[in-house]
Amino acid sequence: MVNETQHTCSASSSSRSDGSSSGSESSKDNSRCSTPVLDADRHERLREKMRRRQEAGDKWFSLEFFPPRTANAAVNLISRFDRMGAGGPLFIDVTWHPAGDPGSDKETSSMIIANTAVNYCGLETILHMTCCNQTKDDITAHLQKAKRLGLKNIMALRGDPAGEEWEEEVDGFNYAVDLVKHIRNEFDDYFDICVAGYPKGHPEAQSYEADLRHLKEKVFAGADFIITQLFFRPETFLKFMKDCQAIGITCPIIPGIFPIQGYHSLRQLVKLSKLEVPQEIKDVIEPIKDNDAAIRNYGVELAVSMCRELLDSGMVHGLHFYTLNREVATTEVLKRLGIWKEDPRRPLPWAVSAHPKRRVEDVRPIFWASRPKSYIYRTQEWDDFPNGRWGNSSSPAFGELKDYYLFYLKSKSPREELLKMWGEELTGEESVFEVFTCYITGEPNRNGYKVTCMPWNDDPLATETNLLKDQLEKVNRRGILTINSQPNINGKPSTDPIVGWGPSGGYVFQKAYLEFFTSSEIVTALLKVLKKYELRVNYHIVNVKGQNITNAPDLQPNAVTWGIFPGREIIQPTVVDPVSFLSWKDEAFALWIEQWAKLYEEESPSRMIIQYIHDNYYLVNLVDNDFPLENCLWQVVEDTFELLN
Amino acid sequence: MVNETQHTCSASSSSRSDGSSSGSESSKDNSRCSTPVLDADRHERLREKMRRRQEAGDKWFSLEFFPPRTANAAVNLISRFDRMGAGGPLFIDVTWHPAGDPGSDKETSSMIIANTAVNYCGLETILHMTCCNQTKDDITAHLQKAKRLGLKNIMALRGDPAGEEWEEEVDGFNYAVDLVKHIRNEFDDYFDICVAGYPKGHPEAQSYEADLRHLKEKVFAGADFIITQLFFRPETFLKFMKDCQAIGITCPIIPGIFPIQGYHSLRQLVKLSKLEVPQEIKDVIEPIKDNDAAIRNYGVELAVSMCRELLDSGMVHGLHFYTLNREVATTEVLKRLGIWKEDPRRPLPWAVSAHPKRRVEDVRPIFWASRPKSYIYRTQEWDDFPNGRWGNSSSPAFGELKDYYLFYLKSKSPREELLKMWGEELTGEESVFEVFTCYITGEPNRNGYKVTCMPWNDDPLATETNLLKDQLEKVNRRGILTINSQPNINGKPSTDPIVGWGPSGGYVFQKAYLEFFTSSEIVTALLKVLKKYELRVNYHIVNVKGQNITNAPDLQPNAVTWGIFPGREIIQPTVVDPVSFLSWKDEAFALWIEQWAKLYEEESPSRMIIQYIHDNYYLVNLVDNDFPLENCLWQVVEDTFELLN
Repeated sequence: MVNETQHTCSASSSSRSDGSSSGSESSKDNSRCSTPVLDADRHERLREKMRRRQEAGDKWFSLEFFPPRTANAAVNLISRFDRMGAGGPLFIDVTWHPAGDPGSDKETSSMIIANTAVNYCGLETILHMTCCNQTKDDITAHLQKAKRLGLKNIMALRGDPAGEEWEEEVDGFNYAVDLVKHIRNEFDDYFDICVAGYPKGHPEAQSYEADLRHLKEKVFAGADFIITQLFFRPETFLKFMKDCQAIGITCPIIPGIFPIQGYHSLRQLVKLSKLEVPQEIKDVIEPIKDNDAAIRNYGVELAVSMCRELLDSGMVHGLHFYTLNREVATTEVLKRLGIWKEDPRRPLPWAVSAHPKRRVEDVRPIFWASRPKSYIYRTQEWDDFPNGRWGNSSSPAFGELKDYYLFYLKSKSPREELLKMWGEELTGEESVFEVFTCYITGEPNRNGYKVTCMPWNDDPLATETNLLKDQLEKVNRRGILTINSQPNINGKPSTDPIVGWGPSGGYVFQKAYLEFFTSSEIVTALLKVLKKYELRVNYHIVNVKGQNITNAPDLQPNAVTWGIFPGREIIQPTVVDPVSFLSWKDEAFALWIEQWAKLYEEESPSRMIIQYIHDNYYLVNLVDNDFPLENCLWQVVEDTFELLN
Repeated sequence: MVNETQHTCSASSSSRSDGSSSGSESSKDNSRCSTPVLDADRHERLREKMRRRQEAGDKWFSLEFFPPRTANAAVNLISRFDRMGAGGPLFIDVTWHPAGDPGSDKETSSMIIANTAVNYCGLETILHMTCCNQTKDDITAHLQKAKRLGLKNIMALRGDPAGEEWEEEVDGFNYAVDLVKHIRNEFDDYFDICVAGYPKGHPEAQSYEADLRHLKEKVFAGADFIITQLFFRPETFLKFMKDCQAIGITCPIIPGIFPIQGYHSLRQLVKLSKLEVPQEIKDVIEPIKDNDAAIRNYGVELAVSMCRELLDSGMVHGLHFYTLNREVATTEVLKRLGIWKEDPRRPLPWAVSAHPKRRVEDVRPIFWASRPKSYIYRTQEWDDFPNGRWGNSSSPAFGELKDYYLFYLKSKSPREELLKMWGEELTGEESVFEVFTCYITGEPNRNGYKVTCMPWNDDPLATETNLLKDQLEKVNRRGILTINSQPNINGKPSTDPIVGWGPSGGYVFQKAYLEFFTSSEIVTALLKVLKKYELRVNYHIVNVKGQNITNAPDLQPNAVTWGIFPGREIIQPTVVDPVSFLSWKDEAFALWIEQWAKLYEEESPSRMIIQYIHDNYYLVNLVDNDFPLENCLWQVVEDTFELLN
């Protein structure tokens, strides 16, 4: 009887657990992974995720975007990825614009936008790719580049033939099926491949039936799933799906949903896709064609009701949204359907990357907590990523500081806005203290502007930091200019909405951490105070020249965030590492100049104030090792101020 | 001013921290070790430890042993190593007996005894080696073998020439200095080398002065420190030491202390060493020569007073004891001197090995908790040892079960004793339950004998297990035959006398663990009960054939002991690993037969009872993942019994 009772614990282990529970042979099996699988999503391919969600009866959605025209728009699109990524899309996809140099390294190319989504936003991403009018070598080169960048999924399309006189090329790429075959030939099973389905038949197809046969060819050539062209009536899709199944297409077919967002965008899309807008929709829209809000409301209503019908049919498990790079309509539809799942729980306390080579990564220095994209950028050349211990990292050299537009030293806010927040004119170090203080408190500055970002924090204060707000305000006022901090946590549930991370059923812990810039006078007093706390507080104090004072034993990293989970080894995702602190120091000091000082004229008093701080202040970090006791770092700072008075 | 205030935190970091606290160059320095240095002792060589202890003003001692004649005596000597090792010797040394095949693989050879001390008892060990009458190749082979076995220190001696007619060989090994030179030539700086000093001059030396010159030669040839021949008066040593210093010998000189333990051993030693016993000692001893206890008391008194004088001189930092393989006298001297330091704190929760290749080892499966020597034996061929995570281990194959006498499947107690403890005649499974129960309670069995060991625990119950005594008694009585357990601990200081380990200032944690043999009836009920605890309790249940039932996700290890320390990454020294559990299972089941069943005649009812249990019982382990809550494993067992009733 006992042998029949073989369990595996979690749904997430389904694909790999078959061999795990029987027979002593497995004692020789060393196939277990070297890092605890905290989040199956990081290890599964897209088609597996899709299957798992379907088996679990979880409805999901995905989002389509196109590459923007300007670098500024690219910066905004990336912020949109982060915001819409928070709702839990199964994947996003990025369209391929043959006219826009889509495979290039330009900040606005399809390739780079998809790269950014995967690596920096941690989103499962499909890159579209068209094949007609391209050479085999070009296509292979694009695919190789995509693979190198960590892209794992391709939407294989024919693309629109250039010019009227298009003719089939012998041995060329004439149809999407040629691209599917090419990918499978050259890259074996590396990529998950998606193809397009046309619920009304492709406009150029001989017939609806002929188009279905083409679709079947694409699937049989190696496609993993189908996303459909938009349609206006649920029954269109449901009929199409039944017809597909009838001829033997068994892979997932995902309906493409287009929430109508405006009169003109609808007309343009209809023109491009050669679709007919049903009369009942025209009847509603035409009378309100100049009222964008009304059209959008109607579009949301229509999409919600269509999606509900699709989901209720039991045949549809996921919905694909044509967002047109807009946020409001799609988000509203998803929220009303109840499939927008803003899960505050994070697999790890920092933003993970979806590049396959970073799957095992589970430790990072705390310094880049507010600049995760910079961290990913500066470590993109690493071959190994630390897991288990930071000390195990074999590639500790950080990439050089470069002025990469998308998310590096530049702020995403324009100069005028930054000047309003950080001061048109500084009168002394105290005006800088004030900016820091306003950022912490959320109160408007003396000119009535809220300080919503700082050079070291491109976003408003984290919820967790809010726990320390009163203390932070007090010390910033007096010239302890904080840029990073966390409270101590002595075993809160991993599901805690503010400090929790990782799978449920676990417990998370933190050591209190405080990082700030401050003057050499304060540092002198601080060092005297720290003698009293020698065994309890670890510190690193460094200036821009690299003069470094620390009591870290043997240059060892200090784990400051860790979690204990059922049936797992311990995860310690954040460390204070003395070695990488010196790389972070370069970046942290550079931000004073690149983001702040350069807002002002050279030689101007404001610029000289920032330059003075850059040249003379110290960057300090403090860790209170006694996490079960009350955080002593505020007392350390208090003692320091007392000593100064 | 700031740059002058450069700190390093702990004494243990002194040798490596010079480069750690200044300059940004160190950001490229990747010399930090891959595992947190929990215990500097594991990474320093003997001469560095000596220097560090001297600098810190810590007095220390060392212990000399000779290889025993029989394998039985070897087993006892190893137990003595463990007991005397608990007092904190800086090192032990093992003498070289040219007549006893000292470099062989015999259980009683000098080489194997020293190997056991290093690898299995975790003691810093010096192997003596003599050179006269040996070929260069023989000596090199011995040294290579010593190195391979993890020995790092050699006491280079001439040895006694064989026969009366000994003459110097040209180019041969005539003196200890030849051996010192040979070691340095062939092994560079690998070994720490010790040489012998004679406070009264070597008996064969031309003069005291000539002998001092010989000693200087040995030191200048590459010896790191000196241990002296025994002497009877402190002034003898202090004069010798001053004379050494006067001719330029600056390395440590350690006085050899011989606590007189009996009339005959004194006479024999004096004869061998050609020393004169001073008249004042003879005057005391002769009248009491038949009273061993009286002589020993006198010997202890004498040694204590001599050692005090040596230590008070300020010239002596360590004392070397000629133990004659006995425990009582030396231990008493050390305790009275206050340098026997039975530190209940352990660097890790299990017994570390002193083999250099195991320096980084800091994770082990919990299964071998009571059989650490067996674990070391079975993993001796591993090239890498897990550190940080068990999952990182690249050599997970355990050595085969072999019948290695010293500490493997055989008990160290003789058959007659085992029969008294475990029953001359078993009448059923219940008599086995009784044996387990008596072991837990410490009560005598029905024949009036205490059960002080079990096949899986060669020692009395651990203090920690005592915390669970009442519960364990209850379940063993009913056929849950426990062989390993630990309570849950939610953050106790690392200095806790019972569950603490690692450096001070840290916090240790544990998940509750219970491992037992039990019948298939109980397993059936248990599995039903475990469904209720599915998310909280991880289990592995296996029988001798390897049929295995588990809910461990993805065969991942579960960390069950971990510690958080100031300025360090997290240490998780004990895991429940599903893969190695299957290797442990083979050993655990084999112990039923090898240690217990084989006490009885073949075909006897007693033997068949044990054989039945071996063939039909299951080995079960349970982990309660919710370490902050009250241990639920007792409730699981209680529920199981309830279900059965």
